[in-house]
Amino acid sequence: MSNSFGSIFRISTWGESHGVGVGVVIDGCPARLPLCAEQIQAELDRRRPGQSDIVTPRNEADTVEILSGVVDGMTTGTPIALSVRNKDHRSNAYDEMQHTYRPSHADFCYDAKYGIRAWAGGGRASARETIGRVAAGAVAKAILKALCPQLEVVAWVQQVHTMICPILPKDVKAEMVESNIVRTADTESAEHMATAIRDARSKGDSLGGVIACTVRHCPVGLGDPVFDKLEATLAHAMMSIPATKGFEVGSGFSAPLLTGSQHNDAFYMEGARVRTRTNNSGGIQGGISNGEDINMRIAFKPTATLMIEQDTVNDAHEEVKLKGKGRHDACVLPRAVPVVEAMVYLVLADHLLKQRTTTIR
Amino acid sequence: MSNSFGSIFRISTWGESHGVGVGVVIDGCPARLPLCAEQIQAELDRRRPGQSDIVTPRNEADTVEILSGVVDGMTTGTPIALSVRNKDHRSNAYDEMQHTYRPSHADFCYDAKYGIRAWAGGGRASARETIGRVAAGAVAKAILKALCPQLEVVAWVQQVHTMICPILPKDVKAEMVESNIVRTADTESAEHMATAIRDARSKGDSLGGVIACTVRHCPVGLGDPVFDKLEATLAHAMMSIPATKGFEVGSGFSAPLLTGSQHNDAFYMEGARVRTRTNNSGGIQGGISNGEDINMRIAFKPTATLMIEQDTVNDAHEEVKLKGKGRHDACVLPRAVPVVEAMVYLVLADHLLKQRTTTIR
Amino acid sequence: MSNSFGSIFRISTWGESHGVGVGVVIDGCPARLPLCAEQIQAELDRRRPGQSDIVTPRNEADTVEILSGVVDGMTTGTPIALSVRNKDHRSNAYDEMQHTYRPSHADFCYDAKYGIRAWAGGGRASARETIGRVAAGAVAKAILKALCPQLEVVAWVQQVHTMICPILPKDVKAEMVESNIVRTADTESAEHMATAIRDARSKGDSLGGVIACTVRHCPVGLGDPVFDKLEATLAHAMMSIPATKGFEVGSGFSAPLLTGSQHNDAFYMEGARVRTRTNNSGGIQGGISNGEDINMRIAFKPTATLMIEQDTVNDAHEEVKLKGKGRHDACVLPRAVPVVEAMVYLVLADHLLKQRTTTIR
Amino acid sequence: MSNSFGSIFRISTWGESHGVGVGVVIDGCPARLPLCAEQIQAELDRRRPGQSDIVTPRNEADTVEILSGVVDGMTTGTPIALSVRNKDHRSNAYDEMQHTYRPSHADFCYDAKYGIRAWAGGGRASARETIGRVAAGAVAKAILKALCPQLEVVAWVQQVHTMICPILPKDVKAEMVESNIVRTADTESAEHMATAIRDARSKGDSLGGVIACTVRHCPVGLGDPVFDKLEATLAHAMMSIPATKGFEVGSGFSAPLLTGSQHNDAFYMEGARVRTRTNNSGGIQGGISNGEDINMRIAFKPTATLMIEQDTVNDAHEEVKLKGKGRHDACVLPRAVPVVEAMVYLVLADHLLKQRTTTIR
Repeated sequence: MSNSFGSIFRISTWGESHGVGVGVVIDGCPARLPLCAEQIQAELDRRRPGQSDIVTPRNEADTVEILSGVVDGMTTGTPIALSVRNKDHRSNAYDEMQHTYRPSHADFCYDAKYGIRAWAGGGRASARETIGRVAAGAVAKAILKALCPQLEVVAWVQQVHTMICPILPKDVKAEMVESNIVRTADTESAEHMATAIRDARSKGDSLGGVIACTVRHCPVGLGDPVFDKLEATLAHAMMSIPATKGFEVGSGFSAPLLTGSQHNDAFYMEGARVRTRTNNSGGIQGGISNGEDINMRIAFKPTATLMIEQDTVNDAHEEVKLKGKGRHDACVLPRAVPVVEAMVYLVLADHLLKQRTTTIR
Repeated sequence: MSNSFGSIFRISTWGESHGVGVGVVIDGCPARLPLCAEQIQAELDRRRPGQSDIVTPRNEADTVEILSGVVDGMTTGTPIALSVRNKDHRSNAYDEMQHTYRPSHADFCYDAKYGIRAWAGGGRASARETIGRVAAGAVAKAILKALCPQLEVVAWVQQVHTMICPILPKDVKAEMVESNIVRTADTESAEHMATAIRDARSKGDSLGGVIACTVRHCPVGLGDPVFDKLEATLAHAMMSIPATKGFEVGSGFSAPLLTGSQHNDAFYMEGARVRTRTNNSGGIQGGISNGEDINMRIAFKPTATLMIEQDTVNDAHEEVKLKGKGRHDACVLPRAVPVVEAMVYLVLADHLLKQRTTTIR
Repeated sequence: MSNSFGSIFRISTWGESHGVGVGVVIDGCPARLPLCAEQIQAELDRRRPGQSDIVTPRNEADTVEILSGVVDGMTTGTPIALSVRNKDHRSNAYDEMQHTYRPSHADFCYDAKYGIRAWAGGGRASARETIGRVAAGAVAKAILKALCPQLEVVAWVQQVHTMICPILPKDVKAEMVESNIVRTADTESAEHMATAIRDARSKGDSLGGVIACTVRHCPVGLGDPVFDKLEATLAHAMMSIPATKGFEVGSGFSAPLLTGSQHNDAFYMEGARVRTRTNNSGGIQGGISNGEDINMRIAFKPTATLMIEQDTVNDAHEEVKLKGKGRHDACVLPRAVPVVEAMVYLVLADHLLKQRTTTIR
Repeated sequence: MSNSFGSIFRISTWGESHGVGVGVVIDGCPARLPLCAEQIQAELDRRRPGQSDIVTPRNEADTVEILSGVVDGMTTGTPIALSVRNKDHRSNAYDEMQHTYRPSHADFCYDAKYGIRAWAGGGRASARETIGRVAAGAVAKAILKALCPQLEVVAWVQQVHTMICPILPKDVKAEMVESNIVRTADTESAEHMATAIRDARSKGDSLGGVIACTVRHCPVGLGDPVFDKLEATLAHAMMSIPATKGFEVGSGFSAPLLTGSQHNDAFYMEGARVRTRTNNSGGIQGGISNGEDINMRIAFKPTATLMIEQDTVNDAHEEVKLKGKGRHDACVLPRAVPVVEAMVYLVLADHLLKQRTTTIR
C-alpha cells in the first residue's frame, strides 16, 4: 500500500525507469468531471526530460494514454488508469551500476530491503516514478478547477546552490516561472541559476536547491486533525518526492526567532471575511486552512549520480571506485516544480472531498 | 480516519482538553509483548504538566489505565485501549474564548470547518491531545526494545528562541537531556533557555524553538517507497504535532549549499557492515534506512495563547481585543520532547512490522 | 487494523469479556449531529444480558459513558469514544477452560494464532465484543435519522432450530419484534421459539437460527463498486458477527431455482420514481441500492459452549472431556438482533457519507 | 478506494468492458517471488470468453502484459502492473441499451449514483472487470505456492438451476473440474448442466447456480478478528463478484437445523496435530483457520441480460420494452470458477502476510 497516496481521492503509481512504462490508477475521482488527455499531457510536458539544455537529454515524449474511467470527455466515477510507455531507455549505460552502489542513491538500501533491485536506470528509485504523480496531479487540478475556480497553485525554484531568487511569494507569477528554463521567479535569477547548473554539469557535479510553493484562494476549512492536518499531509507528500531533505510551512525554521507576540497573526475583518494581518501561519492554523495563502518550501539535495569518480562499495561488499554513466539531471529542480505542484493538487483535492463528509448539514 | 496513524501498528486517539479524558486504542500490536502500565506511565510523566516551574501549572497526574489487550503483563494481539482521565480542568478560565478567536490558534479554523467547537481548553486542539500519542509511543518503544534491543531514540531541545545548544547529535546523551528541566543537551544551554522561558512567561509572551532527534542503531531496510518513505512518514508524524512549522532530515535546508560531490556520503566497509563516511543523508537513502544515525530537526512556533492583549475577531465577526487566561506553557518544547520521541517510535515500529512482509523468504 | 470497520465513518472496537471493559472509538462522525447517551443506551439495553429468562443471566447494566466528541448534546467532528465497564465477570467459572479448548469455540485458534489468549470469559472472542458495535451503530443510526428520516432498519429472528416465522419481510413491524423476548415477528412463533430455547437450555444444549433484516426507504445510489458493493460490505459486516455461517441478499440461495426471465425485476414508473415489480434483487443491483427494500438473511450456528460433556483436547495436546460452566446464552439470536441492525447502520452510514464524494456537482 | 481490495497484499483494478482495456496494480507483493506472464495467462485462459460453446462467443485472447514489478522472472517488491487490452468489443450491439435500463442489471443504479455511465458493454459493471481479479489472483497463488506448497484451492460448479452435482467437497478433483466445460465435479452432472445451459440460451433465457470452493491444507491461524475474520473477508470477496446473492461457510444455512451438541466439532489428536472429528465449522473457528478444509458456497443469480423482450424503463423515465443484443453468457458459472478461486487466493495471501506481524517472536 506504500505506492498509494490519498484517502478518498487515492492514487496508486507503478513502473520502473527502464521497464515497460510507468503509470497510475486513480480511485475515487468524482464522476462528471470534464477531463481529456491534453490536460494531463500539458503537465507531463513540464516534467519531461529533454525540454531544455539544463536537464537530462533522455529523449522521452512521455505521451499519456487514458486507459479507463473517462467516456466522451467526462469522468465516470470509476478508476482512471493512466499509462506512459518508456521509449528511450539505454540500460547498458547502467552496466557498471548493476553491482556497484552509487553513493547517496537508493541502490544499497533497495538491495538491503528487498534482496533484489531493478538496477537499470535506478528502477523504481528513479525520477521517472514521478510521472504517475504528475499525471494524477493533473486530474486533481481539474477537480480543484471545477470546484474552486479561483484556487491557484504556483511553485518555483527559489534557490539553486547559493543563489536565492528574491521575489516574494505573493509576487510570483506562474507565467514568469514558465517563461524560463530554470522555473524561477525572475529573469536575472534564471540566468545565474542556469549558468551554475551548466557549470556543475560540465564538471560532472550536481546542485540542489529549494522549491517554494504558494496556494492562493484556498477555501477555509481544509485539513483533518489530528494526524492528517493539512501541513502533515503536505509534508508527507513533499518528503516522498525523491531527493527532498526538508519541509517548511509559513515561518518554518524562522518561527523560533520571533516571540509569540511577534509571531501571532492578528485577525481582522475584511468585509465579511476573517483575515489575518500577517501570515506567519502560512495559511494553516490548527492543521486547517484559514483562507490566507499557503506558503511552503521544500529543500532538495544535489543529484546523487555524478560523472566524477567516487569511493563506494559493491554488492560483494568490496570497496571500489565508481564514475557515473547514463543521462542525468545535474539539477532536478526545474523539472521538480510540476512534481511539487502535482503533490499539492493531490493533497488539496483529497482534503476538499473529505471536507464534504465533515458536517451533518 | 484522520485520528488514526500507522498502517499495521495503528493507533486511534480521542479526547478533548476539558472533556472526560483522553486516550488511544492500539490495533495491530503483536501478541506476547511484555507490557505494563509503569512503562507507559514513565513516558507520560515526562510529558506531564506541572513537572517544573517552566511549564504549565495545570495539575494533572495523567495516570494511565490499561483497559484491554494485556493479560498477565503480556499483550494478547487484541486492541490495547489506554485511557487517562482529566482531573484539573477549569473551563471558566476560557469563558472569554468561547466566542473570541485566539490569534494563531485553531479556534477560528475549527469553527469554520466543523461549525462547532469544544471551546473549553482548546478542545481537541490542545496539547493534551498528545497524551494518546505518548501512551501509544511507549508501547511502540516496547516493541522496538524487544526486536531491536540496541535501537535508541533521543530527542532534545536544540534551540529556544535565539539560543542554540551546540552539542552534536552523536554526542547527545539521554541522561543529560532528562537531567534538566528544559530537556536540552548541556547544562549551560539549559540555564540560559530556562531563564529565557521564565522571562517570556513573566511578560505574558511565549517562545518557540527546535527539537532535534537522533535514532541510533536503526536496522537497515526500514521505509516503504514510494509514498511511505521513512522521511515521508516521519515528516507526516512530526508535522502533525501541534505548533510545528518545519521538518528536516540529514542535511535538510543546508543540503543545497553543498554540491553533489560534497554532499554524497561515500560508502566504505567496516568489517562486514556497509557504512558511510559522512551522513548528510541523515540515515535514509531512497526512503529507506541505511543503518547510520537518523537525524532530524523539527521547528516549533511560539505558543499562540498569550497573556498580552491582542487584536482579533469573535464569532460574530466583530473586531475585538483578547487577553488570554488559563494555564499555558510559555514554551512547549520541554514537554514536546517525549511527544517527538513517541512519534518516532510509532513510525519505526510500523515500518519494522511492515518489513516482515516485504520479501518472500 | 482488523478491529476497525468502515472507511469514512470508521469505528475501532476494543475490550475483552472479563477485562476492565469494552468500548469503541468512532472517527469520521460528522459534526453538528445531535447525540446523547440515552440514544446509545437504548440500543445497548436491547443487547444486554439478563433482559429475559431465555438469555444469559450475567448481570450487566452495560451503562455507556461518552468520553469525547460530544459537547452540549452535539457532535464536534472529533472522535467519539464510548466505554462500558464490565461489572459482573466471574472468571473462576472459566478455570477449567484455561487449558482446555471448547469444541467449535475460538479457544484453540486464538492460541494457535497469537500464542496466548485471554481465556477468562472467552476474552475477545466473546459476545461482549459486540457492545462496541451496538454503541457505534446507535451513532450511525442517528446520522441516518438526520439525513434520511424515512429510512428504517428492522431485524428479527426468522428461524430458531426448525421453527420458521412465516411473516413476510414487508409485513414485519419493529414494535412487534420488540414486544416479545425472542425478537421474532409474530406471537405464535415467539412462544414456540421461547419454549424451544428453554428446553435446549435445560438440557445444557443450544440452538441456532436465522436473523432476517430489511431496510426500508434506503436512498438510491448507496454502494461502491467494484469491491465495496453494498452487498459485499453488508456480507463483511454480518459474517464478522460471532457465530454467523451464511449471508443472503434478495433471492439468495434460491436465486438459481429461477431462470433469468423469472428472476429479473421488471422496471416500471411509479409517478416520478423508478420501481421494480418484484424484488429478487433485494434492493441492490450492480452493488448499488435501487430504492427497493434491502432484504437479507444471516445464519447463526448454535452456541458452542454447552453444559454437556464433550470430547476435546487441551493445550498440552491431550484428549480430555469438557463440560462447560459459566453463564451463556442457549440461543444468541434474541440478543443478536440489535447487533445485526447496528452493523447495517454502520454500513449504510459509511456508504451514505462516501456518496457525498462521488460526483463533482 | 472501493476499487482496491486487501490490506497488505493490496490490488487496485481498473477498466471497462468496451474501453481500451482492463487491468490491475498489485501493491505489497513480497520481493523475490518467481513470477512470469505464463502463470498469469494460464488463469486468464480459464476465465476467457469463447473457450467453449456454452459461454459468450466474444473473441478475446485476453493476453496479459506485465508492465512493472518483475525483473528477470522475479518480483522486486515494487508494484506489479498487469494489463489486458480489449480487442473484440462491438459497441453498436449496445446502442439500444444506451438509454434503456436492463432489468436487474446495473444500468439504472450506475446512472442514479454517478449521473453518467459507460453504457457500452456494461462499462465497469461487466464480467470483464473480473480480469484484474484473476490476474492478481494468479500472483497471490504464486505466493501461497511458495510459502504453503501443500495448500490447494479448488472451486467447482455445484449447482446449475435445479441440477446439483452430488460429489462431496473432499472428493472433488481439480483435474476433473477442468476436464469439462461446465467446470463441475463429475461427468454426468457436466452433461446435464451443459444441456440445460444450451437450452436456456436457445430460448434467450439464462441460468444461475452455486459454486462451491474448498481450501485444503490451509495453515492454522489465518484470519484477523474481530472485523477481518476469515469468513468475513471471504464473504466480502465473494459478494463483490458480479451476480452473487449468497455466501455460506461450513454448515451455512443448515447450521440452525442442528443443536449445539450435534453441530460442535469435537477435537482429537492426530499425532501432534489438533484435528476435528466433523467439520461443520468449515475450517474456521472464531474467525481463524483451524487447519481443516475451508468449505464455502456462493449463490449466483441467472444472467440479467436476456434475448427475450422485457418490460423496463429508459433514462427519460418512460416505460419501454427491451430485448437484449450483444454477446452474453447464458450462465456465468463455468467462467466464474477461476474468479472465485482468485478471490480466495487474494484473501488467503493477504491474511498470510498479515500473520507475519501478529506475534512478537
